[in-house]
Amino acid sequence: MFVTYGLKLALGDKIKYMGKNIMTMTAEILSTGDEILSGNVMDGNSAHIAQKLEETGAQVVRQSCVGDDMHMLVSVLKEIAGRADVAVVTGGLGPTIDDLSAEAAARAAGVELVFDPTAMGSIDNYFKTRKRPMTLSDNKQAMLPKGADCLVNPVGTAPGFMLKIDGCVFFFLPGVPFEMRHMLSQAVLPYIEKCYGNGRRFSMVKTISLFGLSESAVNERLVGLSDRFSQIKLGLRARFPEIYVKLYARGENESELDKRIDEALAWTLERVGEWTFSVDGSSMEAEVGRLLCRKKAAIAVAESCTGGLISNWFTNVPGSSEYFLFSGVTYSNQAKIDVLGVSPDTIKQYGAVHERTAIEMAQGARRVAGATYGISTSGIAGPGGGTDDKPVGTLFVGIATPNGSKGHRFNLSFATRLMNKRIFAMTALDLLRRELLGS
Amino acid sequence: MFVTYGLKLALGDKIKYMGKNIMTMTAEILSTGDEILSGNVMDGNSAHIAQKLEETGAQVVRQSCVGDDMHMLVSVLKEIAGRADVAVVTGGLGPTIDDLSAEAAARAAGVELVFDPTAMGSIDNYFKTRKRPMTLSDNKQAMLPKGADCLVNPVGTAPGFMLKIDGCVFFFLPGVPFEMRHMLSQAVLPYIEKCYGNGRRFSMVKTISLFGLSESAVNERLVGLSDRFSQIKLGLRARFPEIYVKLYARGENESELDKRIDEALAWTLERVGEWTFSVDGSSMEAEVGRLLCRKKAAIAVAESCTGGLISNWFTNVPGSSEYFLFSGVTYSNQAKIDVLGVSPDTIKQYGAVHERTAIEMAQGARRVAGATYGISTSGIAGPGGGTDDKPVGTLFVGIATPNGSKGHRFNLSFATRLMNKRIFAMTALDLLRRELLGS
Repeated sequence: MFVTYGLKLALGDKIKYMGKNIMTMTAEILSTGDEILSGNVMDGNSAHIAQKLEETGAQVVRQSCVGDDMHMLVSVLKEIAGRADVAVVTGGLGPTIDDLSAEAAARAAGVELVFDPTAMGSIDNYFKTRKRPMTLSDNKQAMLPKGADCLVNPVGTAPGFMLKIDGCVFFFLPGVPFEMRHMLSQAVLPYIEKCYGNGRRFSMVKTISLFGLSESAVNERLVGLSDRFSQIKLGLRARFPEIYVKLYARGENESELDKRIDEALAWTLERVGEWTFSVDGSSMEAEVGRLLCRKKAAIAVAESCTGGLISNWFTNVPGSSEYFLFSGVTYSNQAKIDVLGVSPDTIKQYGAVHERTAIEMAQGARRVAGATYGISTSGIAGPGGGTDDKPVGTLFVGIATPNGSKGHRFNLSFATRLMNKRIFAMTALDLLRRELLGS
Repeated sequence: MFVTYGLKLALGDKIKYMGKNIMTMTAEILSTGDEILSGNVMDGNSAHIAQKLEETGAQVVRQSCVGDDMHMLVSVLKEIAGRADVAVVTGGLGPTIDDLSAEAAARAAGVELVFDPTAMGSIDNYFKTRKRPMTLSDNKQAMLPKGADCLVNPVGTAPGFMLKIDGCVFFFLPGVPFEMRHMLSQAVLPYIEKCYGNGRRFSMVKTISLFGLSESAVNERLVGLSDRFSQIKLGLRARFPEIYVKLYARGENESELDKRIDEALAWTLERVGEWTFSVDGSSMEAEVGRLLCRKKAAIAVAESCTGGLISNWFTNVPGSSEYFLFSGVTYSNQAKIDVLGVSPDTIKQYGAVHERTAIEMAQGARRVAGATYGISTSGIAGPGGGTDDKPVGTLFVGIATPNGSKGHRFNLSFATRLMNKRIFAMTALDLLRRELLGS
């Protein structure tokens, strides 16, 4: 079993009661390491920890990052100890001379580093399971501040630990995201849940996927949600150009919570329903895949300006070979003619970027692959290639269905070629989705 | 013109001299906003700012994040003012009630908010250029702390400002990444360079692009670089599976610096040259494109397991239509046969995932598109579809050239389908690159 903590520390006594029936535990997050401080490595850990802590009901009040500097580390640990109820620290637990977290924690708490048999066992076990030899420097990782509880790490070499400094309970975790996430979910969150919720609180989350509004436009439309639905918290995530709206619910009565989150969902859909393509948090490509499966239909794609992005998204979904047959990424006109059967006259008369060409591309992809539906893109992603008539951002989408073909023109210019490719691809998928729903 | 700053603030007087001939300016970064603090929105700004500040020679000593909370904002601004020489703050400059940065700055500095005509002009101009009406709440953004210098924002509605609080010069920038980056490069960095360097210091950076080693393996191989080359700083960035090694050089003698960075580059290449594909920081797809251009050659692709990712990467490069003709993303066997002319017997005898099939796919793509080279991928990206003989991670790459065709087998299993697709696509591109260099 994984959890070996004695739960010696009393977290409950630090929890503050703020208002009627609402306990708030303040939390801070500290990431350490020169590579993160200097921006050389992006810190994805802190955002993940913040989300997870907030889901337990703790209130994250500050995130910080400092480098591998003993003086700075001790100082920031002491600051946090004076402010927060609970803190999660990542990084600095490795075997090298730059890994300072255990010693900094000991200094901040005013205790010695002592040999910890549980930590040694964790390290030993990791190497034994993997049949790898231990080196001398690995022993350094078994030295923990006196009074710390070791957090066993079954998925890496560096054990973590839990230590109370002043009134704050610190969790020190490795910086490797995979290891950190494992220990956070296996050790830290259950501990906090236990102290905080006494096992009597429930949490749920609903995710709505949108396309066609900016993050700030979604935010504006949903202002007031948290005021109106007191147990519901709003979260937005963007994977350009998709926006994911998350409704977090937390409370003590499960069926009431169920009702509240449904009410909040209905309220949300009144405001952004027009742009919503999934109420279970699916990506556009997964949702389109689901609709294709439901109709037992297959899709073929012809891509010019999106250059393979639509195919790449389709095939990111496991099992997409059930409905995705073929994409012809036809950058050259000759390939449009030879592979998709676009008429040379069409290209000569209208050019490659035209509604007529897009329709013939979609028809060609559908025919060549023997698919139920064909979609195509032809446009100007930029930065070059724009004209007065067809500026950068011009997009034509063709759709070929069992009942005929259509073409659509859009003007969607964003800041970069890559953003344009993404918005073009998403626009084509959304058209296909609406076609699949309508017919 | 963009820059309108009076440069009223003297930054130079706060610069500390540390050791002989080395001035170090300490910098802090603060990102604000509930959406970042709670982890709902990933903070990409701070890492970017940290990199850019370090490139000017400033030493970033701490990054922090707090929410939209006046008390907390004022308190953290005062803390930073007492510690750092310069600080960059992002977010909280918008027109809504949650946007607290200007008022928090005024409170921390102990001054009033006053109407700023430059800020008003910046906002006014933005709306006029875009022929959009201004709303009353937009006027709020023209109220700046007394004594602040407005930083005009030509790419968004929220002007920024520069304000000295205690001994620290603060730059307040919008949180929108595009706007923040624009103002950072146009206003903040030139100002810091001017105050810091007095025009007498030089900085250079060389970027080496690698494929085939993990970030930690690269790091291990380059341990000792900064000790050996005193004026050189090492930075690593990963865009899985590519690794970018950055060598930053900074000093007072340009020609000496040139020599130092060349020595450091040579030392680096001795250790990781085998995996290096560019010494000017190009992406793999741009480097392969460059080699194709140099040979006046064109490429066609046949993708099965990479599902369009190779095409998508190729077409991310502006101007790629010069050498990229076509990709057949043939997920179905029938498309492999019909579009690429793979022999039905080959598929029947060996299956879709086989060296022989991969070779015929590459040949077919090359023939169909009339390209100089053809490359193909066929394999098992997972999570399903693996067998004892061909487990998840199995990849076959075919290469068709004017001098014949070859097939290659790899076993490259990573944690997810998306990682496998990326490593598969990169492996195929790297084979093509080596082919282009060798022949």
